[in-house]
Amino acid sequence: MAVQTVASTTDSAASPVDLGPAAALSCRECGHRVPLGPVFACEECFGPLEIAYDFSAHDAEELRKRIEAGPANIWRYAPLLPVPADVATKPNLNPGWTKLVRADNLARELGVTGGLYVKDDSGNPTHSFKDRVVAQALEAARAFGFTTLSCSSTGNLAGAVGAAAARAGFRSCVFIPHDLEQGKVVMAAVYGGELVGIEGNYDDVNRFCSELIGDPAGEGWGFVNVNLRPYYAEGSKTLAYEICEQLGWRLPDQIVVPIASGSQLTKIDKGLQELIGLGLVEDRPYKIFGAQAEGCSPVSTAYKAGHDVVRPQKPNTIAKSLAIGNPADGPYVLDIARRTGGAVEDVTDEQVVDAIKLLARTEGIFAETAGGVTVGVTKKLIENGVLDPSLTTVVLNTGDGLKTLDAVAGTGLTATIRPTLDSFREAGLV
Amino acid sequence: MAVQTVASTTDSAASPVDLGPAAALSCRECGHRVPLGPVFACEECFGPLEIAYDFSAHDAEELRKRIEAGPANIWRYAPLLPVPADVATKPNLNPGWTKLVRADNLARELGVTGGLYVKDDSGNPTHSFKDRVVAQALEAARAFGFTTLSCSSTGNLAGAVGAAAARAGFRSCVFIPHDLEQGKVVMAAVYGGELVGIEGNYDDVNRFCSELIGDPAGEGWGFVNVNLRPYYAEGSKTLAYEICEQLGWRLPDQIVVPIASGSQLTKIDKGLQELIGLGLVEDRPYKIFGAQAEGCSPVSTAYKAGHDVVRPQKPNTIAKSLAIGNPADGPYVLDIARRTGGAVEDVTDEQVVDAIKLLARTEGIFAETAGGVTVGVTKKLIENGVLDPSLTTVVLNTGDGLKTLDAVAGTGLTATIRPTLDSFREAGLV
Ligand SMILES: [Zn+2]
Ligand SMILES: [Zn+2]
Repeated sequence: MAVQTVASTTDSAASPVDLGPAAALSCRECGHRVPLGPVFACEECFGPLEIAYDFSAHDAEELRKRIEAGPANIWRYAPLLPVPADVATKPNLNPGWTKLVRADNLARELGVTGGLYVKDDSGNPTHSFKDRVVAQALEAARAFGFTTLSCSSTGNLAGAVGAAAARAGFRSCVFIPHDLEQGKVVMAAVYGGELVGIEGNYDDVNRFCSELIGDPAGEGWGFVNVNLRPYYAEGSKTLAYEICEQLGWRLPDQIVVPIASGSQLTKIDKGLQELIGLGLVEDRPYKIFGAQAEGCSPVSTAYKAGHDVVRPQKPNTIAKSLAIGNPADGPYVLDIARRTGGAVEDVTDEQVVDAIKLLARTEGIFAETAGGVTVGVTKKLIENGVLDPSLTTVVLNTGDGLKTLDAVAGTGLTATIRPTLDSFREAGLV
Repeated sequence: MAVQTVASTTDSAASPVDLGPAAALSCRECGHRVPLGPVFACEECFGPLEIAYDFSAHDAEELRKRIEAGPANIWRYAPLLPVPADVATKPNLNPGWTKLVRADNLARELGVTGGLYVKDDSGNPTHSFKDRVVAQALEAARAFGFTTLSCSSTGNLAGAVGAAAARAGFRSCVFIPHDLEQGKVVMAAVYGGELVGIEGNYDDVNRFCSELIGDPAGEGWGFVNVNLRPYYAEGSKTLAYEICEQLGWRLPDQIVVPIASGSQLTKIDKGLQELIGLGLVEDRPYKIFGAQAEGCSPVSTAYKAGHDVVRPQKPNTIAKSLAIGNPADGPYVLDIARRTGGAVEDVTDEQVVDAIKLLARTEGIFAETAGGVTVGVTKKLIENGVLDPSLTTVVLNTGDGLKTLDAVAGTGLTATIRPTLDSFREAGLV
């Protein structure tokens, strides 16, 4: 199976593609390079491939000006992404450039004095950070001549792929477990693509998708998080770029990132390193903290035990968008948390719900469960003396509370009264 | 009752407030002016009060530059709104500057050749245009020294008020019918304000709120759409400003706006007129079209019958955010549609659902039912030869599909298969 998913140098060299500064794919484990193509595993060692860039042409001041004059979406960073230079003229959802909200009320409650910010990715077109990564995969799919955009999903990704494909004029075919909740099915089905229920659990769905990629039936299909994964993953770098630019081209001292596969956290670190390397921000220390839900905390568990290896867990948490029991980038996350002086921590489902309400009550931001995880972990890390409240801290909210209403279903009326002033006064509301 | 809701000139003159270019309140019917205050009805004729501005100081070129250098939210237009000049430094949700999406796929399906755009207000902080109007009411509440932000609501407004109050450090108290669907209750309750269920229907809720405003128990309370209504309503002007600026400081030829109370449509017209008056856009003809659902179409019915008066209806439509059977601004809407050469049209609930799916399928935008109404009406107006497809046309989507999932609940899986390639092939998906 794996043999079908790797490219030989000869295969891909036949069709050079224009993906801007992306120069090649490079193995994260052994450094082996192959030309850009729809492959994700190293032919030498089966390690994960990632994009290698050629940024040599950039003058820092000129690049900064060019970015600042760019569109109010991720394409302002096109010179740093695996996309053609004219990407902004192509039909896509133009995600990104979401608000970095100065959260003074939340800071007071948590005792943060150094400046607390929420990077609120619920403002994306389909209301999760997935729009950032899917937009990269879409450009790769265009470059490779694919006509169908596909993925396996249990939530946010299905809608992001369906919407992006609709706008770009691609066919989409999304695979989900057949017994997914009706609300999530509707959110994915409304874009009119193929939405296929698989009789089985999410593992069965994934196994089927891997088979399909290796089969002639899957020809011309771009699976955003499988054969287009190296491109897809780069979308998370834009979170790092935006945070720094929105802070006035400054690195945050501390940043709290949710962990699902761990890819987002590792790419945020990569993005910060690139900005330093390009001279767009001053080279100062920063700390990256990873956040998990206790019911799916393989990385946090490994971190606390001092392990380099992550032992898989069977997820059982309301934070479903983070419920990956065997996170592919877990070891890289551990390395980054330790190298930067950060940490990995987890919170209970009850703490997740409390944190969702805390953020809503203080800042008027209604976060998905993943946002409850990061805010909850931030609170815990401060209480434990691990996160320094005197430093500038950015907390990620990667999705919208409207997508996980069930998590706060217990929230309700504070009073019920008859439509009279007497009844109102009796309720003690004045 | 009404006596308690009007101000005498002397009352308000005692406390001058700084609301930027807002100079006074002026009666829409008789022109009587009173100082700025938390009043909404004329003491002379009980007509509606609206903001009178002093824009005399502006040089067009300078103003345009100032706006373009402003923040990426409605406060870029602070010089044209009833807010203090330093509004952007105060805690609020910073709504607006939502995407104006060039909708080429939809244009092809509808036969529009002159350029079709969707102004997508689902990108606002609580995912509806209500954030624009509530933000104005909040600044008025601050100026008048109110400490509680309040409203009656059955949907979007409750969440917008709860979120804005939370962020701004106001107490909020929102009144809803006690038997509202649990999902809508959660969306409003999560921000932690008082959420009071009234035993009765929406009319009972409104009647109670009017009583509360006239009672000492309501002292210090700003009801965003009652005693703060003149300020609140101005928020809709920002839609007109943004559309023109995003078109390159150009008026659209045609614009399709949903009608609930009719306030949004009249304020969009006011905003366009202001831009013309200020010299920010060229003075050219534009047409404004109003859109209603057939199940609540009092304005459309009056328009078609050639009446100047709107006869109330009992709403029965899935487009609940537009279900106002007795729209206060109905006569003004009729006047604007006729004066500009536009029209008012309505579509059935079935056409609303079809239009939601059409927009999602072509542009990847998942609209609330109100967006289904405007897209559906646009389609119908083109088919009827009323809307000219060779002209630049802007269609408003005022809210997010995630808020009215029930409307498209029939959408579902296109196939269910076993996790095998054989089963996949049998389903005819390749
Ligand atoms: Zn390798
Ligand atoms: Zn009057």
